[in-house]
Order: sequence, then C-alpha cells, then structure tokens
Amino acid sequence: MSDEFSFSVKAVDGAARTGAITTPHGLVRTPAFMPVGTAATVKAMYPQEVRALGADIVLSNTYHLMLAPGAERIAELGGLHQFMNWPHPILTDSGGFQVMSLAKLRKLDERGVVFQSHIDGSRHELTPERAMEIQHLLGADIQMQLDECVRLPCSREDAERAMRLSLRWAERSKAAFAAAPGRALFSIVQGGEERNLRVQSARELVDIGFDGYAIGGLAVGEPQATMLETIETLAPHLPADRPRYLMGVGAPDDLIECLSRGVDMFDCVMPTRAGRHGMVFTRRGRLNLRNARFADDRRPIDPMSSASAARDYSRAYWRHLVKSGEILAMMALTAINLAYYQDLMAGARTAIAAGRLGDFIAEVKTGWAEGEQADA
Amino acid sequence: MSDEFSFSVKAVDGAARTGAITTPHGLVRTPAFMPVGTAATVKAMYPQEVRALGADIVLSNTYHLMLAPGAERIAELGGLHQFMNWPHPILTDSGGFQVMSLAKLRKLDERGVVFQSHIDGSRHELTPERAMEIQHLLGADIQMQLDECVRLPCSREDAERAMRLSLRWAERSKAAFAAAPGRALFSIVQGGEERNLRVQSARELVDIGFDGYAIGGLAVGEPQATMLETIETLAPHLPADRPRYLMGVGAPDDLIECLSRGVDMFDCVMPTRAGRHGMVFTRRGRLNLRNARFADDRRPIDPMSSASAARDYSRAYWRHLVKSGEILAMMALTAINLAYYQDLMAGARTAIAAGRLGDFIAEVKTGWAEGEQADA
Repeated sequence: MSDEFSFSVKAVDGAARTGAITTPHGLVRTPAFMPVGTAATVKAMYPQEVRALGADIVLSNTYHLMLAPGAERIAELGGLHQFMNWPHPILTDSGGFQVMSLAKLRKLDERGVVFQSHIDGSRHELTPERAMEIQHLLGADIQMQLDECVRLPCSREDAERAMRLSLRWAERSKAAFAAAPGRALFSIVQGGEERNLRVQSARELVDIGFDGYAIGGLAVGEPQATMLETIETLAPHLPADRPRYLMGVGAPDDLIECLSRGVDMFDCVMPTRAGRHGMVFTRRGRLNLRNARFADDRRPIDPMSSASAARDYSRAYWRHLVKSGEILAMMALTAINLAYYQDLMAGARTAIAAGRLGDFIAEVKTGWAEGEQADA
Repeated sequence: MSDEFSFSVKAVDGAARTGAITTPHGLVRTPAFMPVGTAATVKAMYPQEVRALGADIVLSNTYHLMLAPGAERIAELGGLHQFMNWPHPILTDSGGFQVMSLAKLRKLDERGVVFQSHIDGSRHELTPERAMEIQHLLGADIQMQLDECVRLPCSREDAERAMRLSLRWAERSKAAFAAAPGRALFSIVQGGEERNLRVQSARELVDIGFDGYAIGGLAVGEPQATMLETIETLAPHLPADRPRYLMGVGAPDDLIECLSRGVDMFDCVMPTRAGRHGMVFTRRGRLNLRNARFADDRRPIDPMSSASAARDYSRAYWRHLVKSGEILAMMALTAINLAYYQDLMAGARTAIAAGRLGDFIAEVKTGWAEGEQADA
C-alpha cells in the first residue's frame, strides 16, 4: 500500500465525480459515506460488519475521545486503528463542532476554546494546535482543522467573524500539522449563508493549500435548497483534484443531490441513530417499525438489501423487538441502514462511471415514491 | 432428521453422563447449556452468532411471549423458530416462574393463576392447559408443565402444598399436551428443601411418565450445598434414559458441580446479563471491566476464547466501551460469556466421554484460582 495520500478522479458525469482516495490504511472509493464512530465504535456494530456492509472509512470524534479514554491513552495503546480494531482509513473531526453543541461553559477567543466536559465537568482547552496534536496521537488518516461553526440563521457580521477566525485557525492548523507519511489535513469552508463569504473562505483556504476541503456549517437546520446553492456556488472555487467533504450530511436524498453537485465525502449519524430508534431506510423509502401496521407484516424489510437482517426476518419480528427495546433490533436496523447508505453510494459510483447518474437518481427516487406497498 | 424425540446416553463418568437429545429441529449435545432468549431474542446476539458459539438449543419465555407479541400472533407468523430465525431446537418454560416474579396482582388457585401484565396491567390467565396451548402455538420442541415454585426458605407445609399442586398440574399438562411429532413434554420436580418431598415428587412424576424431568425451585438464593444435596438425592429416582434439566442454573462452578452429579441441561441468564453489565467469565475467572485497573490493559480478555471479541481487542478498549455505555460492549461481552459457557460444556462432554471428568474439573478450577495475572 502506498505511503502517500492521494486522490484521483476516475470519471465525471456533469458536476459529479467518482474516484479514489489512497491512504496508508487503504483506499476510499468516492463518493464515500463515512459511518460515525463517535466513541471509537460505530454504535451497535462490530467493525468487521461495518466493513462488510461497504464502508471504506469511518469518522471518529475528537471531542469524545479526548474526554474518554483520552488521546494520550489511545496513543499508548497503539493508536485509534488498533484500539477500535479498524485497520482501514479513519477521519477524525477537530472536536470544535461538539464543543459548541455538547460542552458546558464554553469560552471562545482567538487562541481557541475552553470548555467543561459534558460528562464530568472537567475543564479542557481546544486550540488549533491541540486539535492537531490530538488527531496526531489518535493516528487519523485524515485530520480536520479546528473551526468555528456558527448556528444558522446568523447575522452577516457573525458569519464573517467566524469565517475569518476559521481561516486564521486553518493557517495555524497547517503550521502545527505533524505530517506523518500519508496523513492528510483538510480545511473547512465557512461563511454561513453568505455566498461571497463562502467564496472568500474557499479561495483563501485554497491559497494556503490543503489535502482536501470540507464544507462546514451546513445541515444545521437550513432548507435543502440553501445547502445545494452553497455547494453549487463553491464547487467551481475548489480544486478539482482534491476531495470535497460535506460535513454532517445527511438523509439519502441529500447525499444524492450533493454528490451530483460534486461532493466526494459524507458523514452523518442519521443511519445509525435512526436504526437505534426503529427507523429504517429502504429502496422503497423509510419505515417506522413502531407503527402498528407492521405487527403482523410477514414481509422482510427489504428483500434486496445487502444486510441479511433485512431479508431473513419479518417486519413483525423487528417491530416486536423495537417495541420491546431489544438490543438486537438496534443492531439489525443499524446494519440495514448502513447497508442502504453504502449501496446507494456504490450505485452512484457505478452510475457516474457509466455516465448515467441522472438515470440512477431517477430510479432511486421512483423507488422511494412507489413506497413499500410496491413490494406487497 | 428424525421426527421422534429421543435421548441417548453415550458415556457415563461417575454420576455424570454425556449424550444427545434428538428433536425434529436437530440434535442437542448433553450436558447442554441453553442461552436464554426471553423475548424471542438472546439479548444483544444474532441467532447465527449464538449458534456459532456452540449453542444447540435456546430457551424462550412463555410469560413474555404471551404478553408480547402474543402466542397466537407468533403461530400466525409461522411459529417461534421462524419468527426468531432460529431453526434449531427450542425449549419454552411454562410461564409460571415469571408470573410469580414479575406479574402484578397474582391470584393462584387450583385452576391456575390469574395475573396482570407487568407491561400494561392487562389481565391474563395461565392454567396448565393454557400453558400447553401457548407452547404448542409457539412450536417449542420441549415444553414445560406449569408448576408452582415457592420462594425458599418456606415452611414444609407450603413446600408440600405447592409440590402437590404441581403434581396435579403435571397430570393436567400431560392430558392437554398436544403431541405433535417429535415434541416433548418435561415435568418439574418440586418440594423445596425437603428431601422426602422432592423424592415423592420425582416418583409420582415418573409414574405419570414424561419425556424429561426438570428440577425446579432451586437457584433461588439457597447455598450451593443445598442445591447439590437435592440433586444427589434426586438422581437415583429419575430414569437414567430421560434428560434431567436443572432450571435457572447457574454460575460456571454450579454447572460443573451439577453436571458431575448427573444433570444434562441448564439454562441461566447469567452469561448474557453479566455481559450487558461489564462482567466477563474467562478461563482465569471473572473480570469486572468497570475496574480502573483495566484502563491501560492492552491484553486481550482471553487469548484462548472462541469469541473473537475476546482476542482481537484490548481489555482497555472494552473497559472504555463499558464505561461509555456502548452497545458494542454489551454485544461483545455477551458473546464472550456465551462462548465460555459453551466451551465449558464442550470440555465437560469430551471429558465425560474420555472418563476424565475429575481431571477436567480440577484443571478448570486451577485456571480460575490462578486468576488473570497468570496470563501477564
């Protein structure tokens, strides 16, 4: 395996691209969906299951790991790949987003952010330099700069201030990045809903130069159209030969729409979180297994799923287990959702390579629109 | 596969026996440990994992299934084997024990027991006949008579009254048993701590005639010595050519001691429940992964385990996941415990066949006594 981080586009179809990221821990086929392994585990899944369902890379959360069990401890234990028994590529976020959403008593200034752990109230500091150090200790293949993500809607002043701070932090991140062979550093475009701020952010980050470019501050409650416009605005300003990563997105429809606009990488808790709450994604749309109409439904969840749990048991069984709060339901529905997400990405990659992404998307949307009764 | 239920003893070693139960759903090697699948799922395990770790048969709880999703519904959906995707033998209990321990507002009389669901307060009745009907609807390979299990210690009068009632219910159960081909009915010896009551119970049940004999009302808090004495007292009064099933037992040490006294079948929630709470059973004794001394322990839980989770990850990792309340820890530690229980049974079967059960037990106990530091 190569020791170099690289990205190559193999085919394009309109604005969409398919290709591969090479890392020392293996290949990532793009467009890629990264399951979220917050606390060094994709919830309710063995790593080999995550792999078998099609994941090339997982995301893990710096905020959670720095609090428990601690980045230095994970480094002592051989790094995150060994710790979680996932020998394939790992991307870690910077921790900034969770500091904003989870931590108590935050104080943000030019230097960084001081916060209290949501677990035990202990005091911690995250700076661009410390975020780089932690991700280096974890051994992530792809590391993210610390940024400030403002809540939408926000004033232009707030969006600009956060975008400027994130740019300065991007520079400090690059200076602090300990470039072990093959490891990559991605920066994050900010700017809220302001198109010219977004473009400025992208241009200045490209001037600094990074291995990949993320789009942050979206999927925080704004309409899908806002998100798609932002991506369309940004794509021409991002280098074609670097991966583009849309952070925290999204529903299957979001993924389809965004990859068709040139996004290469996604992460989201949606498939795993929804699975733990009785919701599954299928070729025929979503099913909420808490619904009473499944109590006697002997059909499988989706006979075409690559997850055996979707084929070898009835909907009535999963409904019974969801209603009973059984762990096996969380395991199985998580697996079914990850399988669906990965199969959707695989379908998109194949379609882009064949120059028929438009047809593929139309087929996928027809399946959703027909609904589950089409299988009856 | 044979349509007949049968049991054959292949070898004896002292009072211990090894053999096989034949059912239409396959063989059960004895001595056998039955994982508990209360609500039609062995908690946190896919059925194929339970199978791969060595289980020939699982137990499921009539009380839980009659309340949700309902025995008639499971029958409509093809029976319990198909419902839970476990095509191998299943034993169901009668529901009586959980009525006593879980249900509200019980009223027990000659006819049966009326109770309120612990879930929604709905009113239900369980009689010997209804217990047979429910287990028939579920399609269990081995069905259990309804009995009354008194709490220990209890007066001789109470023990005798419950034992006599259980005998009358045994007769009614046999009369009501719908003997589909290959299905078996086991009765349950009661009598509390009174040796002569126990012997009377056994003799009268044998006179009625059942496919197997369970020992009930033990493992309810009494000293291990009391349990072992009861088994020693009873064994000569139980037919050698019928399986003997000790209900609700137990810890690994209990299993070893009881199988060496002639018990063929066990069930217990201990390995699965302990696994969900951070406790694992190993060749070197028990480990409580909540203990801080595991925080930096890079050793696997047990390098000789047949569960890969015990080999491919550090104790530090499982401790982190246990402390974080992660589902994967519950999955993995349950698997490790079931693997240990099944390997213990497999070792006992091999040892009995070789006439060296005493040596095997001594080796097992030496491992526990040496403790985990022996692996350091």
